[in-house]
Amino acid sequence: MRVIDIIEKTKNKIELTEEEITWFIDEYVKGNIPDYQVSAWLMAVNFNSLTKKETYYLTKAMLNSGDKIDLSSIKGIKVDKHSTGGVGDKASLVVGPLAAACGCVMAKLSGRGLGHTGGTLDKLESIPGVTISLSEERFLNQVNTVHLAIAGQTQNLVPADKKLYALRDVTGTIKSIPLIASSIMSKKLASGADVICLDVKFGSGAFMKTTDEAIELSNEMISLANQAGKKAVCFITDMESPLGKAIGNRLEVLEAINCLKGKGPKDLENICTEIVSYMVFVSGIRNSKEEAKKLVYEKLRDGSGYNKFLEFINAQGATTNTFDESFVSCKEIIPLLSKKEGYIAKIDALTLGLVSMRLGAGRETKEDSIDPNVGIVLNHQCNEYVKVGEPLLYIYKNDKWDENIISDLYNAYSFSDKPIKEFKTIYKIVE
Amino acid sequence: MRVIDIIEKTKNKIELTEEEITWFIDEYVKGNIPDYQVSAWLMAVNFNSLTKKETYYLTKAMLNSGDKIDLSSIKGIKVDKHSTGGVGDKASLVVGPLAAACGCVMAKLSGRGLGHTGGTLDKLESIPGVTISLSEERFLNQVNTVHLAIAGQTQNLVPADKKLYALRDVTGTIKSIPLIASSIMSKKLASGADVICLDVKFGSGAFMKTTDEAIELSNEMISLANQAGKKAVCFITDMESPLGKAIGNRLEVLEAINCLKGKGPKDLENICTEIVSYMVFVSGIRNSKEEAKKLVYEKLRDGSGYNKFLEFINAQGATTNTFDESFVSCKEIIPLLSKKEGYIAKIDALTLGLVSMRLGAGRETKEDSIDPNVGIVLNHQCNEYVKVGEPLLYIYKNDKWDENIISDLYNAYSFSDKPIKEFKTIYKIVE
Repeated sequence: MRVIDIIEKTKNKIELTEEEITWFIDEYVKGNIPDYQVSAWLMAVNFNSLTKKETYYLTKAMLNSGDKIDLSSIKGIKVDKHSTGGVGDKASLVVGPLAAACGCVMAKLSGRGLGHTGGTLDKLESIPGVTISLSEERFLNQVNTVHLAIAGQTQNLVPADKKLYALRDVTGTIKSIPLIASSIMSKKLASGADVICLDVKFGSGAFMKTTDEAIELSNEMISLANQAGKKAVCFITDMESPLGKAIGNRLEVLEAINCLKGKGPKDLENICTEIVSYMVFVSGIRNSKEEAKKLVYEKLRDGSGYNKFLEFINAQGATTNTFDESFVSCKEIIPLLSKKEGYIAKIDALTLGLVSMRLGAGRETKEDSIDPNVGIVLNHQCNEYVKVGEPLLYIYKNDKWDENIISDLYNAYSFSDKPIKEFKTIYKIVE
Repeated sequence: MRVIDIIEKTKNKIELTEEEITWFIDEYVKGNIPDYQVSAWLMAVNFNSLTKKETYYLTKAMLNSGDKIDLSSIKGIKVDKHSTGGVGDKASLVVGPLAAACGCVMAKLSGRGLGHTGGTLDKLESIPGVTISLSEERFLNQVNTVHLAIAGQTQNLVPADKKLYALRDVTGTIKSIPLIASSIMSKKLASGADVICLDVKFGSGAFMKTTDEAIELSNEMISLANQAGKKAVCFITDMESPLGKAIGNRLEVLEAINCLKGKGPKDLENICTEIVSYMVFVSGIRNSKEEAKKLVYEKLRDGSGYNKFLEFINAQGATTNTFDESFVSCKEIIPLLSKKEGYIAKIDALTLGLVSMRLGAGRETKEDSIDPNVGIVLNHQCNEYVKVGEPLLYIYKNDKWDENIISDLYNAYSFSDKPIKEFKTIYKIVE
């Protein structure tokens, strides 16, 4: 087999065989195929896409390139949750404990944030003492006892994806549906869950800019899960504006805790309760989605969700259980005062994500360290009415600052004389 | 400037600036941009092409990446000739001496053969003693005295093309009109001639499979020459079947000599006399193309072309002037006897080029050495009538052989009951 023939085939829209794709990925991971041939192939995929079959073979080859987590020793249906990444997306911190409190079993391997999007691991690690480096034994044990564990991916989980993603990142080949789908699903399938709940975001702050793209990606991922004998469901959710009010690691932990106490912003609560209700239903804990939803709200109201959160972080080493205002310590909190009066029509998620990154809450490159205390907290969300001089948001800052931050934040806002038509956080559920 | 932005722009069909392209090529040649980013860009170019402006900036950046030949010390209009490559294409060996015999001045830098196509340098070097490694001084001196010199490209002539071509070769990005045009024209413009005659081949044995592609490439190259203040003309010629009857280095030298003596195959003579007539006319040696053509045939008939050939090879070190049958010495000559009766409708050039390579006349990889004595000589060309048992061609072989050669050669032929409609060697001339 020759790499050049594989490149030519994809360039000419000729379907590759499973044998060819498996060989290509195996040899690349072994270091026998140079990056410059793989990047040419990736760009050809970017233009010509891959067939459903090719995408499955690719996912399978990636999945088989390293370790797989064996969850078979754990009783019951194991659920997993993944978000394609957004701004202010702390849903996993709510979904995990709430689902476990309802009786679901969740074993989640998570990633770090990059660019304008945050990562669950960074948020967890912003809690003093919490570790995300769990041995497989400790991870499985915690899933058995707490019914929830969230850990970092080991170095050898889908090494093919690590290599391919790093290459895609510097060659303009990130935004290809089959490449995104195989990257996400190879890791999810390697993580061993039976049911995978995918929060697929669209809009300014997401990879997918439109609902059409988000639906296409969802169908691809569901098909990959089904071909591997697993179940997946996609929640297509809005990321034009940030999710919830808080952006930045500790600020988001506080908001997640508020949500678990039934006092979170409605958009965040809506997404989290929908996802957990689905998990409760497919896990067979309740017989209908309506009954499942009832249980979820019960567990929110009676404090079980928050108690499970404390149990979960304590199992992963937390040295504090105090989550009041003292949890976030920064040098300065600057209000951004509105220059206009009217309904907030949009708060551009991408801009807020990038400003938050520049304040130190996120990473520009993988090597950057992050500051857990900085970020942004919205005073008002979309469709709320503000007057001139009223704070739009608060900037939590330490030393990192640049002169464009204030004007960038102002430019992120657009206003309207009338309230916009009813806005849906969850656009569609695809099964 | 960031490479990723350049890749993204081409991927999204946004025109690059001259500054961006120049920076990209310069940094790549310096080794500051990795191959994997360049190959992704090349694949994006393959899909989205480049604008006329971008192609010119690319050509200019490549041209400026290394040495340029300064022909200004040589009097008169300097002509150059280039073929996009074909099977049995020995036209340069005829055009050069014939043009010089007519009073033209030709300074040509040439390349080696690769794959199924032959190279002028390999054919010249098959003549004992002849060298193609000329110092610039010797090269210019020979152009001044003999009016003809053909040398190999120095290592530092358009180094950007060397790097890019090697990368394109292994990443499926050879066949892109702007990349082919900039590759050819950067070298031709660096060689310093005023008028560039381009033999653009189409058909089975050529890069361009159709006349449309060949015309598109021609227009691109002419536009590049004009933007650089030079003149170019393209002869769109047929490469469905081989040019002339001989394929293989010494076999082709003998055929070129026959042609210079007025005894060559008509298709070869036709191409060569058309190109030389054009050169005579644009050099101002004759005032009309008709008068130019008259002069060219005069120089063929009176032996001046052949005498110029001898003068030229002697200036480049030839140790023999004897070109009879003893010039080609191989172990065996095998006739391929026709199994059919009828008019030869096609002799597939690509197949014959590849068989010739497998006999040792060409290179599969750049590192291969070649055998000057082996090859193929057609007994009949297209549209000629053959009977069963009559030789279609003769195989000149030494040790290199494989069991598929005979069947491959038979498969290269197709026959017809009637003569095909009048066949044109030169399909079109584009100026």
